[in-house]
Amino acid sequence: MITDGIVDDLVPLGVTREVRDAALAEMAEILGDAAVHRDDALVEEFRDPYDHPEWDDHWPAAVVQPASVEEVQAVVRIASRHGVPLWTNSQAKNNGYGGAAPRLRGSITVNLRRMNRILEVNEELGYVVVEPGVTFYELVDELARRGGDWWPSTPDLGWGSVVGNTVDHGVGYTEFGDHAASVSGMEIVLPDGELLRTGMWASSTSAAAHVHPRGFGPDIEGLFMQSNLGIVTKLGRRVSPRPEVYAPLRFHVPEKDDLAPLVEAARTLLLEGTIRNIPVIGGILGTAAMRAPRTAWLDGPLTDDEYRRVADELDMGWWNLRAALYGPARVVEAQLARCEEVLRAAVPAGRFSAIPVAGTDVDERTIPLHPDRVQAGRPSQALLKSIEWRGPDGGHIELSPVGALTGEHVVRVGQILREEMEASGFDFWPSICLTPRSFIYLGVINFDRSDPERIRAAYDLYERAVRRLGGEGYPVYRGHLRGMDAIADQFDWNDHAYRRFVQGLKDAVDPAGILSPGKQGIWPQRLR
Amino acid sequence: MITDGIVDDLVPLGVTREVRDAALAEMAEILGDAAVHRDDALVEEFRDPYDHPEWDDHWPAAVVQPASVEEVQAVVRIASRHGVPLWTNSQAKNNGYGGAAPRLRGSITVNLRRMNRILEVNEELGYVVVEPGVTFYELVDELARRGGDWWPSTPDLGWGSVVGNTVDHGVGYTEFGDHAASVSGMEIVLPDGELLRTGMWASSTSAAAHVHPRGFGPDIEGLFMQSNLGIVTKLGRRVSPRPEVYAPLRFHVPEKDDLAPLVEAARTLLLEGTIRNIPVIGGILGTAAMRAPRTAWLDGPLTDDEYRRVADELDMGWWNLRAALYGPARVVEAQLARCEEVLRAAVPAGRFSAIPVAGTDVDERTIPLHPDRVQAGRPSQALLKSIEWRGPDGGHIELSPVGALTGEHVVRVGQILREEMEASGFDFWPSICLTPRSFIYLGVINFDRSDPERIRAAYDLYERAVRRLGGEGYPVYRGHLRGMDAIADQFDWNDHAYRRFVQGLKDAVDPAGILSPGKQGIWPQRLR
Repeated sequence: MITDGIVDDLVPLGVTREVRDAALAEMAEILGDAAVHRDDALVEEFRDPYDHPEWDDHWPAAVVQPASVEEVQAVVRIASRHGVPLWTNSQAKNNGYGGAAPRLRGSITVNLRRMNRILEVNEELGYVVVEPGVTFYELVDELARRGGDWWPSTPDLGWGSVVGNTVDHGVGYTEFGDHAASVSGMEIVLPDGELLRTGMWASSTSAAAHVHPRGFGPDIEGLFMQSNLGIVTKLGRRVSPRPEVYAPLRFHVPEKDDLAPLVEAARTLLLEGTIRNIPVIGGILGTAAMRAPRTAWLDGPLTDDEYRRVADELDMGWWNLRAALYGPARVVEAQLARCEEVLRAAVPAGRFSAIPVAGTDVDERTIPLHPDRVQAGRPSQALLKSIEWRGPDGGHIELSPVGALTGEHVVRVGQILREEMEASGFDFWPSICLTPRSFIYLGVINFDRSDPERIRAAYDLYERAVRRLGGEGYPVYRGHLRGMDAIADQFDWNDHAYRRFVQGLKDAVDPAGILSPGKQGIWPQRLR
Repeated sequence: MITDGIVDDLVPLGVTREVRDAALAEMAEILGDAAVHRDDALVEEFRDPYDHPEWDDHWPAAVVQPASVEEVQAVVRIASRHGVPLWTNSQAKNNGYGGAAPRLRGSITVNLRRMNRILEVNEELGYVVVEPGVTFYELVDELARRGGDWWPSTPDLGWGSVVGNTVDHGVGYTEFGDHAASVSGMEIVLPDGELLRTGMWASSTSAAAHVHPRGFGPDIEGLFMQSNLGIVTKLGRRVSPRPEVYAPLRFHVPEKDDLAPLVEAARTLLLEGTIRNIPVIGGILGTAAMRAPRTAWLDGPLTDDEYRRVADELDMGWWNLRAALYGPARVVEAQLARCEEVLRAAVPAGRFSAIPVAGTDVDERTIPLHPDRVQAGRPSQALLKSIEWRGPDGGHIELSPVGALTGEHVVRVGQILREEMEASGFDFWPSICLTPRSFIYLGVINFDRSDPERIRAAYDLYERAVRRLGGEGYPVYRGHLRGMDAIADQFDWNDHAYRRFVQGLKDAVDPAGILSPGKQGIWPQRLR
């Protein structure tokens, strides 16, 4: 256990240096010195990788890395006894939302990277059970190693934790793209060190632990996602059977005003069940940025004329829908025809294309582009390139408002995001994930970290936009650390009855207020 | 407010007659005398309609019928202040699971029948918002009145409450047949009288209240289903667009041993997404009983030979799968071909049939049989006839174990149920609801209420079977009042950590322990 100067000064609110050190010493006794880190280097690894170099308000005082459930239990018991705040993460790759950093300065970060076993792959029923340290890449590789009969749902990047992404309401692009909804059966360490299992897993005999959506009595799984009520140590998630045919499709529409009819056509296909995955409607910046930085494309601001020029160069539409179909050959064939029919009827000038391939034949050769491949549960690091849009040291924050899936709402959110982003000198960078009845509009704030002023501008924009979006009816689904209180403020009905209720649960379950204080705007009694 | 002799003696555990009466008087002051019932007749209406005529252990002391959210709030505030237990129901049609009866004798039943407004029908996004008093029939009629563009998911019988069925984890037969999973946006009266809204509905501005699966922070909707933590006063539920083609299908297999391959074939079709609704595999008794009582079919016990004879007479298989397809004509056509191919490959001797009809053309003429029509969200009272199997005064209890969807598990549950039921002199009456990875095996205990001994035998069987099923890995998904503690006992992992956790929430949210004590085996502190 090395103690350098910087972290030594990081004492969490309401705790003395002595108490903090006593807690860490007890943790080191159980976990071993090698699992308790207090060197300054950790601050670099376990901070928000994109925040301002001079900011230290979201630094941890230490990082502990338990290797087992029992060690997690020991850590929370020690923390509860001393009243020392913890912050949990798994792979610590929550980039764009604060990365590894704790909400409360001086928290002890509990990093679960060492708990990285894939505990079960059930190839009869189609589910996996994983520990928090398992990355999407590791899961993808394990499923491939077993023959590739089952496909997971993943986000674009594969380096993050399956559990971490899932419990943060992460989104992927298959039928199980709503990752939280694909979960059955969680194991949780409670703040008092007790161990809990949910749903049918609460029965010691049932084989339905990870296949039935709930048990008998209240369903408590949702309580432990986007939550600071417990530490999830195991989780079951559904995977999809490899289809006979996989058919990623695209529909490019030429005009800015084609967005509303495109959205409504996609909704028709989603509601009727023809499209079962999470389609995305994108602009062009993601694609442009994956090829070359901004300077290669643009000199000045991204006017409509410039946007059209770049779109033409990329052979893209103003808006670009992607989706995918999965299933028996003749069903996919009929569904493809139906998709083309509905989309063309909505936007006759649109361009439809698809790449139907055998499910056994999906690889970088048959499906060369990442956006087409990720819908088959194949993540990559391709998107990282796009962070360099404004320079090699790029950063990003994700503004992710939710709305009802109508053309009008989607267009309105785009207007707000564009106004706010351009007013602060950022490019409007839209990417819209669709569910049958709602959308998550991802507005990427992409900035150059070599210019500290632009970092400040990005984070200022974030909080301002969160408040404006919330005020106009579009609260975000997931939040950056620095916006969590502002986001929670938007859920204001009946004098914030929701927050008051959850804070009541927090006080009951975690009376010492040690677990991730302030996460999602939920603070324990002593810090409210 | 009429007070007769019987109910006057019903004083809930731990409460004096004076306190009970004071609470009722205060409720009458706010709700009006006409909304507070204390006559003996109510015991008949608000008891378990099928229990033993001499039993009085699940009788309410009174029934109050608030007409508004404000009146519900007043009722819980009065009850909390006096510590008087309440029991909530809506249409009070939870037959087979205890009907209207409270778990705790002498509770004051809060019946929400008067709150019966359909608050919103959103025909752009496909959802409805209803109060607890709305029946499935009323919802079906309203959707039909508007042109029938949207179909609900319903149970077989339509007289029950949409909210009541949904919050009890009820099952229907469409893509939204897992009713609890079709919910977004609930309004709840908490035990202290506070009013809470969940998910995106916790934002006062969002139009996504009933279309996005969750808000920001922990998802608490599951907490208020199969629960005694609050009273649900409004709820949003998804409905399905009327498909171009609706195609109910059947697959009858001739042999008892065809069950396992039939289950596995259905799983293939469910996992790959060809079948998107909740299919059912039934035996023959439901169909036989809807035509004539047992005496018309059988003299003695239901041996395998007798079973085959009746099946032949009914032109049915030993096992009979039903499912339905919904969608554009050419997609349904391809899916039908796929279903036939997979099912025939599994059981070559099976008989496949389907009735594809235009979605605009679904009625009693085109789809004459209830089991085919209910998959289009058309309930009926047809099944009530089957209760008369053993005599005109029939009763039933539903044994509903859950398992992982393999042939082996389904067969095993059937063996246990048959053994238990026949050992007590009941007919084995199976009906198996399938999800892609799990099943709910409905074993109907059908009995003749004119013979008090058979009533006792039925209820004894219920609790014994619950314990045996749980012990062998098949806890039930929903429970009769009289089995709730036994069922909760089955969720035993880590010294009943689940129950201990939920009871902790109960104590925090409902410190006076007034809401539905004992529901789902969750008791407040003072009654544990």
